[in-house]
Amino acid sequence: MTNFEIERKFLVATEWLVPTESPSSHLRQAYLSPLGSGNEIRVRAKGDARLMTVKAPDENGDPLVRREVEFPIADEVFEQLWVLAGQDRLSKRRWSVPLGGVTAVVDVYEGELAGLRVAEVEFDGVDAARAFEPPEWFGEELTGDPAWSNRELAARGGGRHPKPGRGR
Amino acid sequence: MTNFEIERKFLVATEWLVPTESPSSHLRQAYLSPLGSGNEIRVRAKGDARLMTVKAPDENGDPLVRREVEFPIADEVFEQLWVLAGQDRLSKRRWSVPLGGVTAVVDVYEGELAGLRVAEVEFDGVDAARAFEPPEWFGEELTGDPAWSNRELAARGGGRHPKPGRGR
Repeated sequence: MTNFEIERKFLVATEWLVPTESPSSHLRQAYLSPLGSGNEIRVRAKGDARLMTVKAPDENGDPLVRREVEFPIADEVFEQLWVLAGQDRLSKRRWSVPLGGVTAVVDVYEGELAGLRVAEVEFDGVDAARAFEPPEWFGEELTGDPAWSNRELAARGGGRHPKPGRGR
Repeated sequence: MTNFEIERKFLVATEWLVPTESPSSHLRQAYLSPLGSGNEIRVRAKGDARLMTVKAPDENGDPLVRREVEFPIADEVFEQLWVLAGQDRLSKRRWSVPLGGVTAVVDVYEGELAGLRVAEVEFDGVDAARAFEPPEWFGEELTGDPAWSNRELAARGGGRHPKPGRGR
């Protein structure tokens, strides 16, 4: 039930081209819970899969720990909830790009967020995360900045992208 | 997808005894969305059924209209979400009591809300709702008072019942 994720997140340089030999999948996700505090309730379509994910804050207030319950939902339920979510949704294509010993997940956003490309790398531990040397095609680091969470991006839609708030 | 409900809601007089010949079912329900604005996301166990219900406010702001999506979830998913919901939950036994041409649904709350009994009657139209004469065992009317919604009652738990805010 309890997930710990150690990851770093970066903008992707404009000149980087998606490697067409890499695997990718199309994602649509919508948020049913309000932006901000409380549980985050998301539905996601990834390929043929339809999932609901409920993420709850840690009972002791630890920002690094979130409890998570994920379960499949029917296709028609997803479509109804997708409509119900109104503007709080986004779609993107997710590419898996090998990067030395790790894998970068590159999200290429669509629709109102088109033009935004974000890379995430997940690590086994804090030391590996700290030691990671971003490749040249990684731009500004976004790690830990809530303005760049998918929940925020979905809410901002409408062509309004968040502005980078800090340098590296 | 769109539900219109016309119903009236009352406290039940303390001297009223549950008619043991009436059918009843046990309900547990938990709320995953925060109290207040936005979508209301509820899971409910009723007998053997396990359901999730997402209720969204009307897009045009009409308080009488809520869009609703309801779908079954697995028993183990319900139990995980029941735990995740923390204190935002309640249990009650629901009795169906014939009342002339209509049926009263009487909820007998349990746990921290024990002692609270609420009757609801649903009508086909506004005229029938207005013409309804409550039986003697109905107490104060609660119709339309958000303080007596199940979402509010779940949040108030901890033995704190809302105080009646208005007379009839």
